[in-house]
Amino acid sequence: MRVTIAQACEQLRSMEDVLILTHQSPDGDTIGSGLGLWHILTKLGKRARVECADPFSAKYSFITDDYVHEEFSHKHIVCVDIADTPLLGKALEKYKDSIDLCIDHHPSNTHFAKALYLDEKAAATAEMIMDIARELQFPLDTYLAKCVYTGMVTDTGCFRYGNTTPKLLRMAADVLETGIEAFVLNRILLEEKSPQRMQLDKLVLDTLDFYYNNRLVMISVTRDMIEQSGASEDDLDGVTMLTRQIAGIQLGLILREKEDGTVRVSARSTYGINASQLCAAFGGGGHRGAAGCTIRGSIEQVKQILLQATAPYLERTAKSS
Amino acid sequence: MRVTIAQACEQLRSMEDVLILTHQSPDGDTIGSGLGLWHILTKLGKRARVECADPFSAKYSFITDDYVHEEFSHKHIVCVDIADTPLLGKALEKYKDSIDLCIDHHPSNTHFAKALYLDEKAAATAEMIMDIARELQFPLDTYLAKCVYTGMVTDTGCFRYGNTTPKLLRMAADVLETGIEAFVLNRILLEEKSPQRMQLDKLVLDTLDFYYNNRLVMISVTRDMIEQSGASEDDLDGVTMLTRQIAGIQLGLILREKEDGTVRVSARSTYGINASQLCAAFGGGGHRGAAGCTIRGSIEQVKQILLQATAPYLERTAKSS
Repeated sequence: MRVTIAQACEQLRSMEDVLILTHQSPDGDTIGSGLGLWHILTKLGKRARVECADPFSAKYSFITDDYVHEEFSHKHIVCVDIADTPLLGKALEKYKDSIDLCIDHHPSNTHFAKALYLDEKAAATAEMIMDIARELQFPLDTYLAKCVYTGMVTDTGCFRYGNTTPKLLRMAADVLETGIEAFVLNRILLEEKSPQRMQLDKLVLDTLDFYYNNRLVMISVTRDMIEQSGASEDDLDGVTMLTRQIAGIQLGLILREKEDGTVRVSARSTYGINASQLCAAFGGGGHRGAAGCTIRGSIEQVKQILLQATAPYLERTAKSS
Repeated sequence: MRVTIAQACEQLRSMEDVLILTHQSPDGDTIGSGLGLWHILTKLGKRARVECADPFSAKYSFITDDYVHEEFSHKHIVCVDIADTPLLGKALEKYKDSIDLCIDHHPSNTHFAKALYLDEKAAATAEMIMDIARELQFPLDTYLAKCVYTGMVTDTGCFRYGNTTPKLLRMAADVLETGIEAFVLNRILLEEKSPQRMQLDKLVLDTLDFYYNNRLVMISVTRDMIEQSGASEDDLDGVTMLTRQIAGIQLGLILREKEDGTVRVSARSTYGINASQLCAAFGGGGHRGAAGCTIRGSIEQVKQILLQATAPYLERTAKSS
């Protein structure tokens, strides 16, 4: 059942002992939203804790350091930024049929929770957490500011993607007025690369393959490159941004060799290509501009499969410039 | 003489046949501010034209295409985003003693114009052009929106640097409400790299030299690399961003070999180092976080000179992490 923000807040107000679930391979939006909601609920005098199938990266320590994990047997479950139950991950899948409220901004949400507060226009779930804080008349303190800012920045590439709205920018202005050092967070969340990541970039740039008059680019990340550079999971996440940077690119595909004989494909599209639709054909999904899927085969085999699958998209979208 | 915004607007209202000067090696802020002011003045029924010592890059065509260059003998001169007269460049230095009004946000402005409207708190001169438009009750149309957005985005790295203020974010929200496709501009202004630039990045990443426990990094761009990659001036500008991206870096120095036996040094600093002060010792200048200077010698010689010059900065600023 879809609920309004007023109904979602009414539900949150009445909850006790709340378990907050975030999605696997956690990003800034699910972490910021989860911790922001935890902060609101605990300040309202409730017990709450945040769980995730995977550990939160150390780079989020500016908000995770102040989080206090309390064990208790939960009475209610809320999940944030989770579009479908497989995203709970193995450790949390046991909760999939008992989630009381899902707070999410993905249009592809499968309505798996008992109540769904969905705002497809929100750039980030963190924006919805700010809406909830306002509805609850919860004061915007620096901790909440850092939590929601994390989600806002992560999901919009620091206000540069097409999902950035006037509403989000005004909200960010309010967040900055709490006095948080946003530029320090921006560096941590978006700019900083480890020396290992720099090394990985160098190796990966050698694999750039252009097709369709430079409108499609594929890059490959082999297990050898990961080993050679010493790159971490976090470093690998960043590599998916590389293809977006090439002038004139419509579709960037990042092929990452996995240990189980599959290739993880991250698709990033710009002008007029629906990456989510492309990935859905292989059992994946995501947003229009950023989606993913997993395909069995070697890097070379998967490249050929993708060349066939993307042909209809690239042949029908002629770019003007 | 320093003037208020009201006085600057009074002056602009009374001007006729206005020559608008932008700084040499023009960036998005001087171009956006110059064209924005041109648009305001011509819509107010005045003749105006924009001049620059160097051509505007083709990437700004989304605002330069609509600019109409009209020849006339000017009665008044206004300059935008120019801190000192050498920045006029050779072609425009003849005007240096007859500038009626300078609109600028650099704290280092040398007060060379007859009247100076200076706002050191403004993130970009384009923000001041928006303030002027409001003071003049000039409507925010899509052309002005694109001009001021260009300057705002260029000078703040799309709202990610420490100069980003709540005021600027709210202004950007107003700008987005005109319906301009900000994300397309963001790509053009900040993300897109030519294949040549990608190639140059690869060559330049091989020259990374770390000092002081990774707190200082130097990278070198030789004339050979430029030739080998086929990189343009625009591509070279982007390379200065590379050092900012390395985790834990306090000071990044980019050394670029010039044809006249000098090395152009771009300094980008983060935590607690004043790049402007460092560059001033070599006759250069700029902002606290981004400055430049030119030093005579080979890349290797300049490296040694810089290692000596930066030692006091890096020895006194111990970083906590």
